Parts: sequence; structure tokens; C-alpha cells
Amino acid sequence: MALEIERKFLVDHIPAAVDGARLELEQGYLAADANGIEVRLRRSGSEFLLGVKYKVAAMSRVEVELPIGEEEFGELWPATVGARLCKTRRTLTCDDQVFYIDDYHNDLAGLVTAEIEFGSESEAEEFRPPSWLGPEITGVEAYKNRTLAQAGLPVGVTT
Amino acid sequence: MALEIERKFLVDHIPAAVDGARLELEQGYLAADANGIEVRLRRSGSEFLLGVKYKVAAMSRVEVELPIGEEEFGELWPATVGARLCKTRRTLTCDDQVFYIDDYHNDLAGLVTAEIEFGSESEAEEFRPPSWLGPEITGVEAYKNRTLAQAGLPVGVTT
Repeated sequence: MALEIERKFLVDHIPAAVDGARLELEQGYLAADANGIEVRLRRSGSEFLLGVKYKVAAMSRVEVELPIGEEEFGELWPATVGARLCKTRRTLTCDDQVFYIDDYHNDLAGLVTAEIEFGSESEAEEFRPPSWLGPEITGVEAYKNRTLAQAGLPVGVTT
Repeated sequence: MALEIERKFLVDHIPAAVDGARLELEQGYLAADANGIEVRLRRSGSEFLLGVKYKVAAMSRVEVELPIGEEEFGELWPATVGARLCKTRRTLTCDDQVFYIDDYHNDLAGLVTAEIEFGSESEAEEFRPPSWLGPEITGVEAYKNRTLAQAGLPVGVTT
């Protein structure tokens, strides 16, 4: 498990220092509850995961990720129809800070976001975003992955 | 995984032939979706499970159960507050048919149900309930475990 404390931003431009390695992520939601509980299937390269997250504070969530078999993934995947997305993840490490840069595909093409995880809420609050980041979208419903997966791009957004 | 095809009944009286072994089940729901997807945590004796079920036909559901660690169970259990129940399960095997007899506790005390699983929908349809079973509650929303866990006993039911 992890207590996940994170902030999320739109990306203005991807810095040259980004890691060349790319991870293809495909994910679908089994549940996305009004109480803030999310149950997600994810294929990360050749790894299959079932993750459960629930909210404990504004920027903090408990996250438990369980490795599952490809067979179990295949059995559960049909239940995520209408709530799926694909993205390519690249990683940038800068000043001991890891940025996960996600480039979305299909209906979400053009959307690029960056997530930064922190060790504490105070660390998260003190973070000063570098200039290549755009507007902050932490906690913005329309930009949550499960909302993007179900509803598509926010209306009025030009990517 | 299993394709779970089952029928469920109230129990009029528990037959003498019931297995003496008892299993204490404690379960809580992480999600119970309008689309029929359920995500359940269960402690079964000293076993910990995360189960996902989704509906594929009137009496059929796909069910995947993942063994999880006690630590993961402990991390996720707080998210099930307000959606929990306890029951004691006994098993009766009769004419190659297995009956799971569940005796509910706490707010649900007095409720006793039996579940019977089948190998096919036609087998399920041909099943003739023995006299110790009461009214059928297959698919009845108020008697689903997740509804019982969240809403308690159906109004007007005397157990």
C-alpha cells in the first residue's frame, strides 16, 4: 500500500530531459464511487494490476495495488466497457522529484498531464511547479482519469 | 474465476443433516455499482479475499476472487464503513447439490438464507427446492448482501 499524496498539472511543453523510456498504460474502471472509492484495472506493459484507491484528505488517498494474472484481467476487463483509457507514460526525475508525464490517446489525444507524488502533505504544499507545467488540475473532477475514461475530454478544452 | 449461476431462498428451518462445520464470514463492500458491478472484501476464517462480481445474465455473474494479505485487507477495510455484514455459513450437501446456509448477525440477526450454485442456467431452472426452504429471493434487491450490508433488513420482514 501507499498513502498517495499527489498534485497534477496540465503540461505546457515536455522538457528535453524526459526519460526516453515509454510505458504503455491501458486502464479501465470497475467502480468509481461517489464516496471517492475507485477500483481500477491496469495493464502496464506486460503487468496486470487491480488497484483500489480511496480518499482520506484533499491531496491524499490510500492506494492498494494487487498484481493479478492475465487470465483474471481478461475476465474482468469486459466489465470496464465505457470507462477505459490508454496513455503513454514517460518519467522525468528532477531535483529528487519524479514527474509522471502521461500522453493520452484515442478520444483523449492531445491531452498531456504530469503527476508528482510527495512524501507528505507539507512537501506537496511547498512544491513550486517548473515553467514547463501549465495550470494545476489537482482534484479537478473533469481531469480525473476515471472521469476522462467515462466522459472524455472536458468541454471547451483545446489541447 | 467462475461463472456463478445461483438461486437464493429464505430458510424456513435448517435441516438436521446440515454439516456441523461453521465458517465465520465478515464482508464489506468497496463498491456496489448501479451497473451490477460489486467489489467485496471478505474475511473467511483466517483467509482474506477481494472479490469482483458482475452480472452477465439474470441468474449468472462472473466472479473473480483474489486472495490478499491481512495487511492489504486492513488497509482497505476502513473504506467499507457503512457497508458491512457478518454471517455464519454452514454447508449442506444433498443429492450432489451444495446448499450454503447463512445465518446473519448483529442488525441482521434472525435472517437465514440458502444459496445454491448450479453448473448451467438450465440446471438452475430445473431445480425443485426442498420443503425446508422458504420463499425464493433470487435477484431480489432488498436481499442482496450488499443491500443488507448498507440498508439492513427489508422493512416489514419478521424473521
